[in-house]
Amino acid sequence: MSKKRICIIGAGPSGLAQLRAFQSAAAKGAEIPDIVCYEKQSDWGGLWNYTWRTGVDEHCNPCHGSMYRYLWSNGPKEGLEFADYSFEEHFGKPIASYPPRAVLFDYIKGRVEKADVRKYIKFNTVVRDVRAIDGGFEVTSRDCEDDSETREHFDHVIVASGHFSFPNVPHYPGFETFQGRILHAHDFREAREFEGKDILILGTSYSAEDIGSQCWKYGCKSVTVAHRTAPMGYDWPENWQEVPALDHVDGHTAHFIDGTSKEVDAIILCTGYRHHFPFLPDDLRLKTANRLAANDLYKGVVYTGNPDMFYLGMQDQWYTFNMFDAQAWWVRDAIMGLIDIPGAAEMEADWKRRQAEEDALEDDYACIKYQGGYTAELIEETDYPSFDIEASNDAFFKWKKHKKQAIMEFRNHGYVSPMTGTMAPAHHTPWADALDDSLESYLQTGS
Amino acid sequence: MSKKRICIIGAGPSGLAQLRAFQSAAAKGAEIPDIVCYEKQSDWGGLWNYTWRTGVDEHCNPCHGSMYRYLWSNGPKEGLEFADYSFEEHFGKPIASYPPRAVLFDYIKGRVEKADVRKYIKFNTVVRDVRAIDGGFEVTSRDCEDDSETREHFDHVIVASGHFSFPNVPHYPGFETFQGRILHAHDFREAREFEGKDILILGTSYSAEDIGSQCWKYGCKSVTVAHRTAPMGYDWPENWQEVPALDHVDGHTAHFIDGTSKEVDAIILCTGYRHHFPFLPDDLRLKTANRLAANDLYKGVVYTGNPDMFYLGMQDQWYTFNMFDAQAWWVRDAIMGLIDIPGAAEMEADWKRRQAEEDALEDDYACIKYQGGYTAELIEETDYPSFDIEASNDAFFKWKKHKKQAIMEFRNHGYVSPMTGTMAPAHHTPWADALDDSLESYLQTGS
Repeated sequence: MSKKRICIIGAGPSGLAQLRAFQSAAAKGAEIPDIVCYEKQSDWGGLWNYTWRTGVDEHCNPCHGSMYRYLWSNGPKEGLEFADYSFEEHFGKPIASYPPRAVLFDYIKGRVEKADVRKYIKFNTVVRDVRAIDGGFEVTSRDCEDDSETREHFDHVIVASGHFSFPNVPHYPGFETFQGRILHAHDFREAREFEGKDILILGTSYSAEDIGSQCWKYGCKSVTVAHRTAPMGYDWPENWQEVPALDHVDGHTAHFIDGTSKEVDAIILCTGYRHHFPFLPDDLRLKTANRLAANDLYKGVVYTGNPDMFYLGMQDQWYTFNMFDAQAWWVRDAIMGLIDIPGAAEMEADWKRRQAEEDALEDDYACIKYQGGYTAELIEETDYPSFDIEASNDAFFKWKKHKKQAIMEFRNHGYVSPMTGTMAPAHHTPWADALDDSLESYLQTGS
Repeated sequence: MSKKRICIIGAGPSGLAQLRAFQSAAAKGAEIPDIVCYEKQSDWGGLWNYTWRTGVDEHCNPCHGSMYRYLWSNGPKEGLEFADYSFEEHFGKPIASYPPRAVLFDYIKGRVEKADVRKYIKFNTVVRDVRAIDGGFEVTSRDCEDDSETREHFDHVIVASGHFSFPNVPHYPGFETFQGRILHAHDFREAREFEGKDILILGTSYSAEDIGSQCWKYGCKSVTVAHRTAPMGYDWPENWQEVPALDHVDGHTAHFIDGTSKEVDAIILCTGYRHHFPFLPDDLRLKTANRLAANDLYKGVVYTGNPDMFYLGMQDQWYTFNMFDAQAWWVRDAIMGLIDIPGAAEMEADWKRRQAEEDALEDDYACIKYQGGYTAELIEETDYPSFDIEASNDAFFKWKKHKKQAIMEFRNHGYVSPMTGTMAPAHHTPWADALDDSLESYLQTGS
């Protein structure tokens, strides 16, 4: 029997976890399948591979990147540390708990460079179509550099293309004639553009909180955040206000549903992202809300519509990198026949049970525990190194408390690594004063 | 024999011309094929259907729209008038020569509403794949509203998706850390965003000229235009300068190759568009530069790689709407067997001869005549109403002279309609003072 052929779509944290999972099996002597990983960007890292571009990329594909300059992790690194490659191993010393993007990008790269998996990746190559055919999949991809296409057959497809790249962009009356810039968080890049400006943010989730904070840090005149359900309720700076939902816009004026209004220069839509897969047909395409237990995924990874197909990282996320690892190791073992995939009825019962459990969760703390438990569940079924999930949960719990205490200061705290047990040092400069987000500046702590 | 099935991709000026061409044959008693026109936007008009959105649209497809608020035609309407539906017929009176976008959109709509062709169009439906198969084409489209796909067979595919929607976006050193907004003309929407700002424009073609003029008109502080080959050389306002090519950017400072520099708040890349067809495989995909005689198109419309496939409007354009009409009528007659398509050798000789002729043209005036001649050539082979091409050429010639005389005043001139022979009235307000670009305001002239 010839070797199985595996297609991985995307070389961000999830796709790279999958490559590392297969490589770690190979390193232990297992015969692994043939692997091709398609990545539409010119480098790996997914969202962590910063781009100044917005809209479409240099090859006219929709821009993957949603990150912006001066982005620091908005959650503690102790919640996302790789169990097989600690921050201490990578940086040679403990570092502070909320690294800027460049530091996390460096960390992600470090593991996969060590594992030597770059050779599996076809960069600048976008998957244009996948069809279930002949007991496998026909994948059509376009090499964007030489503008030519290839059609290849695979036994399994693993979708690791992420779900924070296609913006959900609502319309409000008057947007057509608003006399300033309207943008989605996906296209936000440079907070200094809004220096001295009055900005309006729609939304109350992480993008709203963090982009507002960025604009405040880099000198915008005021931040107004409109909410549809409830305000975020943090103790914001004095030039920051939370207001009810936007009703309509007229010229430069935003009118809210309580009859109040505010003159604004820019409107930033922090209105979330969509699970969008332009390359997938109906029978292979995941359709789910952004939630902890996604639709139609057995164990959170096997697509019940075609169990030769897998999705990584499609959940709403507290846990990230190490959860993707847990999923990738599990998918590897399912593909290599070490884990059995049950029949359709059992798979359906699995994701529905998970959703029912999720629906019963009472608060964010319970959600964190739930996702920690899910991650631990997968890890137990593979040889991924187990780690102190309680320590990770605890970092998340403290993070939430620290945000509540002082939203512009939470990043000044440190937590205990679930991998090494080391307490993170405090960063050398409070976040609000640290305008330099470079790796070099950041690593001055802890030496 | 069953009726042929025709797929038209796009319901902008070219796709609508194709629908009108078939409908006009039907109105004369001919039996026309079955037609399906796929349009990814929610309304017709292509670029003329203004959207406030940038990046991806409400269905996560790359935004088609490249037009901006306050856009007035940058060429005389006498160069684009429909021969079968004059401006006078639509508006009931002569109107001035440089209508704003809303006026031209209304005119485009008027003809196709009269022809009752909206019924052929599937809106909010994006073509995701086309394959040559079984002596025809298999077209996979996604209805973005109910998020479901359809695969249909057609005898002919007519690509009318335009080539001013996918931006060509160059990188310059320092773009990653520029401390302001960088955008392509494709994402430019609202000149007032740049009020009081120093803007840098890269490029010297229509977008550069017109977006710079818009920003000047709506109060930007200064316009700096960097050119790679030669300055545009118009008599610009005093806060406008033309400089050599950009070398790199540092913070807010743009450095040019002559060693000079300028502090700027925004960089607008007026660097052109690409012929990009994400839905087409190698064997059906046109690859051409933006030129008057495109590669691989016999008579400018028949794809020599598969002569059952046609492309409309893929040329660089002086002539627009009525050239698309000439092409659409010709394609209609080719599909209906009234015009013969020759063998491969003759088709190749045709486009190569056209390119050689184009290459020998000495100036813009010769180019205008050349494209007028091409349009007339196609018209002669169909029943599209012939019109006074010389009058159109003459409007273009005068337009160029008027631009040279006073770049911020050329739109105050009027020209003779090639369809009705009527001289256009002057607009009631000079363009530079006409801040209201609404249809209602515009039509106050000539009543």
